[in-house]
Amino acid sequence: MREVAIIGIGMNKWGELWEKSLRDIAVEAALLCLDDAGTDKIDSIVIGNMSGGLFNGQEHLASLIPDYLGRRYTPSTRVESACASGGLAIRTAFLEVASGMSDYALAIGVEKMNDISGGEATYALASAADRDYEAFHGVTFPGLYAMIARAHMQKYGTTREQLAQVAVKNHYNGSMNPHAQFPYQVTLEQVLTSTLVADPLRLLDCSPITDGAAAVLLTTVENAKKLKNHPLVVISGIGLASDTIALSHREDITKLKVVELAGQRALKMANKTIKDINFAEVHDCFTIAEIAVIEALGIVEHGQGGPATLAGKTALNGDFPVNPSGGLKSKGHPVGATGVAQIVETVSQLRRTSGKRQIKNAKIGLTQNMGGSGGSCVVHILETK
Amino acid sequence: MREVAIIGIGMNKWGELWEKSLRDIAVEAALLCLDDAGTDKIDSIVIGNMSGGLFNGQEHLASLIPDYLGRRYTPSTRVESACASGGLAIRTAFLEVASGMSDYALAIGVEKMNDISGGEATYALASAADRDYEAFHGVTFPGLYAMIARAHMQKYGTTREQLAQVAVKNHYNGSMNPHAQFPYQVTLEQVLTSTLVADPLRLLDCSPITDGAAAVLLTTVENAKKLKNHPLVVISGIGLASDTIALSHREDITKLKVVELAGQRALKMANKTIKDINFAEVHDCFTIAEIAVIEALGIVEHGQGGPATLAGKTALNGDFPVNPSGGLKSKGHPVGATGVAQIVETVSQLRRTSGKRQIKNAKIGLTQNMGGSGGSCVVHILETK
Repeated sequence: MREVAIIGIGMNKWGELWEKSLRDIAVEAALLCLDDAGTDKIDSIVIGNMSGGLFNGQEHLASLIPDYLGRRYTPSTRVESACASGGLAIRTAFLEVASGMSDYALAIGVEKMNDISGGEATYALASAADRDYEAFHGVTFPGLYAMIARAHMQKYGTTREQLAQVAVKNHYNGSMNPHAQFPYQVTLEQVLTSTLVADPLRLLDCSPITDGAAAVLLTTVENAKKLKNHPLVVISGIGLASDTIALSHREDITKLKVVELAGQRALKMANKTIKDINFAEVHDCFTIAEIAVIEALGIVEHGQGGPATLAGKTALNGDFPVNPSGGLKSKGHPVGATGVAQIVETVSQLRRTSGKRQIKNAKIGLTQNMGGSGGSCVVHILETK
Repeated sequence: MREVAIIGIGMNKWGELWEKSLRDIAVEAALLCLDDAGTDKIDSIVIGNMSGGLFNGQEHLASLIPDYLGRRYTPSTRVESACASGGLAIRTAFLEVASGMSDYALAIGVEKMNDISGGEATYALASAADRDYEAFHGVTFPGLYAMIARAHMQKYGTTREQLAQVAVKNHYNGSMNPHAQFPYQVTLEQVLTSTLVADPLRLLDCSPITDGAAAVLLTTVENAKKLKNHPLVVISGIGLASDTIALSHREDITKLKVVELAGQRALKMANKTIKDINFAEVHDCFTIAEIAVIEALGIVEHGQGGPATLAGKTALNGDFPVNPSGGLKSKGHPVGATGVAQIVETVSQLRRTSGKRQIKNAKIGLTQNMGGSGGSCVVHILETK
């Protein structure tokens, strides 16, 4: 297997992008990425997108995006694993390069979610759950994560304040991210008194509906070393896992088994332990998700996610910074783009170009991108060399 | 790059499968495949599916299918490139094995298209075209292929009888395929007098709406040689290409550039020319498609697709049999499953297990799977060794 490096990153300003279309934002991120890479070599394109079909009536992005990027005829693939589609695009682009099929593979994550009504968007997102046995009966994603939160509070004594602190921390980080949809700080009080969505989760516990795209260019380490315009960043570990799509089929809904497995697989491939990692970008689609994820990854013990967050362990200046980008909470969550944007942030941190939100001693970073209520997960480990 | 072999194939009876769900048919095909392989080793799963979102309100098949197959925790990917999703699943599973990421990769193609109304299915399929610049204005796939047919008739003198002969040939082949949705013969007269759909295409020029799945198990040639329960079949060439999604952006709509490119790339990788190939499974979503495809692949000269078909060149006992399975026309076209089923048929022919429709001297076969009106294409070359 050939060693793979990341030589280009790009993402646009996320938000409600009424004046731009799905194809516009994908192309914009891709061009920013090529500009950053200083090369426009592309042997293949991998697009991460959750549901162009339901959000935009548009499948076949493997034809549309290369076409509008001015790269018609390029071998192209679209991958999907709900909200983990972006991470999966990175992994699939990695396979292109690692196998020798492509020397340069461009991964683009994109989702345009605001062009339909809120009700339609909720229907589209619920396609990541079990349609026949969950969504059909009326449960939506805030409801599924509320059940995880309630069980976590019951089992470990996790508090509303601890959940809220995830939002406070991530919005603080995001306030320094020019790409973020909501680049402003929130207080604990604001989170705790925001509109109730699905008890115990409130509006500021939830990631938003977002239009956005991100792109990353991969090549062999050998090629990357010739470019020299950025510090070398390599993908040293990848872990992919699936689990039951329905929450009710899990042994213990407070433990994200899929995250644990994907994390272990990635660490094993990178020949690392979690103690070797300096920081992480994780899937905080809801505040409870970040708490359960940092526990499943082994950053903290089970049940310690809430207290550790409140104590500042995962803050930008803490022992183990989590979501320096602002996470899905503040940066936004265009579902298919999120996993790619996590890589963009991690590369930026490893290159030491993250400005005010730069983490000291960022040498090894981890990204964790999750589909549905934990039905799939992709973990990547990135290192400067 | 490691050499890759196919050690298992499976597909169910295709048709209107009212009593089964999306997950049922995917699992059924996968189990048939594992039974055929004589092993149940699976390191990763790749699912080809065009639009679980629009057809079934269900994305996240990378979680759902492993779960219902009894393989939770397995690394899993869903890929999509409209009607070429199945071929893309094979290519992605190939990358898993070729790269060394997986030793055994299971590719499953699946589509359940009958659970929504005809109008909704037409909307779903139109998501493979340019939604903003084609579908929005009312054109559907029979219309797009009718334009190709009309231009082909105008430029080359292709006749209605020649188009109809594609259907006659493929239904003859399909009448011997127990998996086919419409396993019966049709006459030239029946095709020519069937209901007009989009002039000049009639009902029997069009592939049907189908529920179906197919599965293929891939491993290294080294592993395959140890199994010995089937003749060795290897994937020696893969070509993937994209082109403009909108028909109006092509230089010449009678020439499927995307097929030409994918074909050339696959042949180059396999170190073959088209003259080395004994037979092909091609994407006859409409009768005109088969004619344009065999021209683009170089099986016949441009403009000779119609006359060659009428003369029997592509018949089961002709110089170059095309679609021995019955093709999309007779076998059915569950869009995400089609590309995988083409591989199933080709392996069956190479193993000499195709019964009454067995091609003599089947040693090297080609499959060609296409997305939209030619926005994407995957070609595979399979050989017995």
